[in-house]
Amino acid sequence: MATSFPINDDDSAYSYSKNSQMQREILDDSKEMVRDAIIEKLDMKIMLSSSNTLRIADLGCSVGPNSLVAMQHVVQALKDKYHDNILEFQVFFNDHVTNDFNALFRSLPIDRSYYVSGVPGSFYDRLFPSRSIHFVHSSCAIHWLSKCPEELFDEKSPAWNKGMIHYIGSSNIEVLNAYVSQFEKDMEMFLNARAEEIVEGGMMVLISPFTSDSLMEFFGSSLMDLVNEGKLDESLVDSFNLPMYFPSPEDMTKVVEKNDYFSIERIELTYPESEVEHDAKILMINLNAILQGVLINHFGSKIAEETCARTILRSEEISAWMKANAEKSGQLFIALKRK
Amino acid sequence: MATSFPINDDDSAYSYSKNSQMQREILDDSKEMVRDAIIEKLDMKIMLSSSNTLRIADLGCSVGPNSLVAMQHVVQALKDKYHDNILEFQVFFNDHVTNDFNALFRSLPIDRSYYVSGVPGSFYDRLFPSRSIHFVHSSCAIHWLSKCPEELFDEKSPAWNKGMIHYIGSSNIEVLNAYVSQFEKDMEMFLNARAEEIVEGGMMVLISPFTSDSLMEFFGSSLMDLVNEGKLDESLVDSFNLPMYFPSPEDMTKVVEKNDYFSIERIELTYPESEVEHDAKILMINLNAILQGVLINHFGSKIAEETCARTILRSEEISAWMKANAEKSGQLFIALKRK
Repeated sequence: MATSFPINDDDSAYSYSKNSQMQREILDDSKEMVRDAIIEKLDMKIMLSSSNTLRIADLGCSVGPNSLVAMQHVVQALKDKYHDNILEFQVFFNDHVTNDFNALFRSLPIDRSYYVSGVPGSFYDRLFPSRSIHFVHSSCAIHWLSKCPEELFDEKSPAWNKGMIHYIGSSNIEVLNAYVSQFEKDMEMFLNARAEEIVEGGMMVLISPFTSDSLMEFFGSSLMDLVNEGKLDESLVDSFNLPMYFPSPEDMTKVVEKNDYFSIERIELTYPESEVEHDAKILMINLNAILQGVLINHFGSKIAEETCARTILRSEEISAWMKANAEKSGQLFIALKRK
Repeated sequence: MATSFPINDDDSAYSYSKNSQMQREILDDSKEMVRDAIIEKLDMKIMLSSSNTLRIADLGCSVGPNSLVAMQHVVQALKDKYHDNILEFQVFFNDHVTNDFNALFRSLPIDRSYYVSGVPGSFYDRLFPSRSIHFVHSSCAIHWLSKCPEELFDEKSPAWNKGMIHYIGSSNIEVLNAYVSQFEKDMEMFLNARAEEIVEGGMMVLISPFTSDSLMEFFGSSLMDLVNEGKLDESLVDSFNLPMYFPSPEDMTKVVEKNDYFSIERIELTYPESEVEHDAKILMINLNAILQGVLINHFGSKIAEETCARTILRSEEISAWMKANAEKSGQLFIALKRK
């Protein structure tokens, strides 16, 4: 079973549901591309041969707000495409079994025009019956690996990632290779599972953050500061790596073509059009909400909190860094069709 | 929207998941009848015209243990009937949006042979797309009304239920009539919703406790004791009634025949075969776990706790009462087929 790191949703000021602005922006940026995929590429006649129900899945839905916005948008695009009032929609919200589905269910809009289901489980395994899903959506989720590649923790491996917490920032190419290899294995599982579940002609849009440089390095250096101050054992940092890989269009193309169950209808790497002035502090609080589960899981809550607090304190430095690196962070959009 | 009273699942010694023995016995008693309904009455050819997936719903699943046992049992019976390995099962666990779905999901067996979905919402409303469900199961749930009939609270109504908390124990026939009328309205909604959702030839088994006398009277008298001791305002008791009606075979037959979408394949009122010696204290703790949500909602937690504690203290008296009234408590089983 894949490792899971529940998103921080303790209802505090730093909780995910109050700090998912970055993910929301990524979602908003991809809105038109999702709509275009539905309007231009989806063949409803093939899919709806024997029923009037369209089944939609959001994979990695987390506790809510962004997923609800995305699903509303997908349903609206499907309605606009297929002007038929007898069409019914069933949306399956999926995330790890440790996700707070109670919070998600309680935030569902009353006036929704779809039937709701929550589906617990890793999207690297099967989640749905064969040929039962018509449209899959997943935003800011597939960059989470099922686990960290084990070589990173192995002193004897050339991919040992000593003193670092990610491939980004590491100069050791073997570290990057280990991440790529894990990503390819995971994606193969992901595509095989979806190939069984999605009807012929059904579609899948995947949206993933893309970066060649990463704000997360700042968390790594806060951890190393704690080591240098004698507050944290270095071996604890060596035994920790972030299970995230940011796939490039080339990475995705390679795994999809090898898998061969899906055709690529569109693949695009985009960068925010306007030079959005992000408040570094808000961004770090956002990242914090995402990473806290992983950090607490490994270091315990005291070190996790101190790491996050220290990183947030460096917001001026991060702000300068962000201006210099703005062009390195974008998002990958990919629309696939089940052959 | 129907009123909901989340089951007590605070993981305490009195929580529902640790105190659902009564519901488990009702379930065990009906096990063979559920199996018979599947083996003898279900026509798989009609249902599975275009897919290999059987969709099963458990309505009023609560936080788990009994529902998981029931669904395992239903899936096994379906497998035994239809010896075909390509058959897939998708189970929809339904309960109010306030139900603890997180607890349910975390207690799912790893080796289950069905796909899981959680569906939040009142079963008096629509829950699923049209013609999407093959088999509905509901145990110990349909006796919960969507709300209490309003006449019970109305001083000017002949059905005003002064000083009482239920129709059982009241000598006023208008009180009973008000409950029956609410039950009929609710069941009409229930059957209409299911008639849309269940495929032609699909089946529904409903299991409900039946009693003409009730342990709950003891809770009522504990509440009145608090009134007599000046610890509770009588108007608070007058403005409270338990939203439960225990339908008889005649009640069910009447609503099903009027509704006309379902045929009755079997209807039976059964009483425990062996004279099970129930420990009154355990039974009261069980009832307490069920009623606490309703009581806290109306009286606040302090009075609710005191009422339950006082009632549990009377276990010897209740024990004697139970022996004298054993033959009055049974369970109603009904198997319906969508015409």
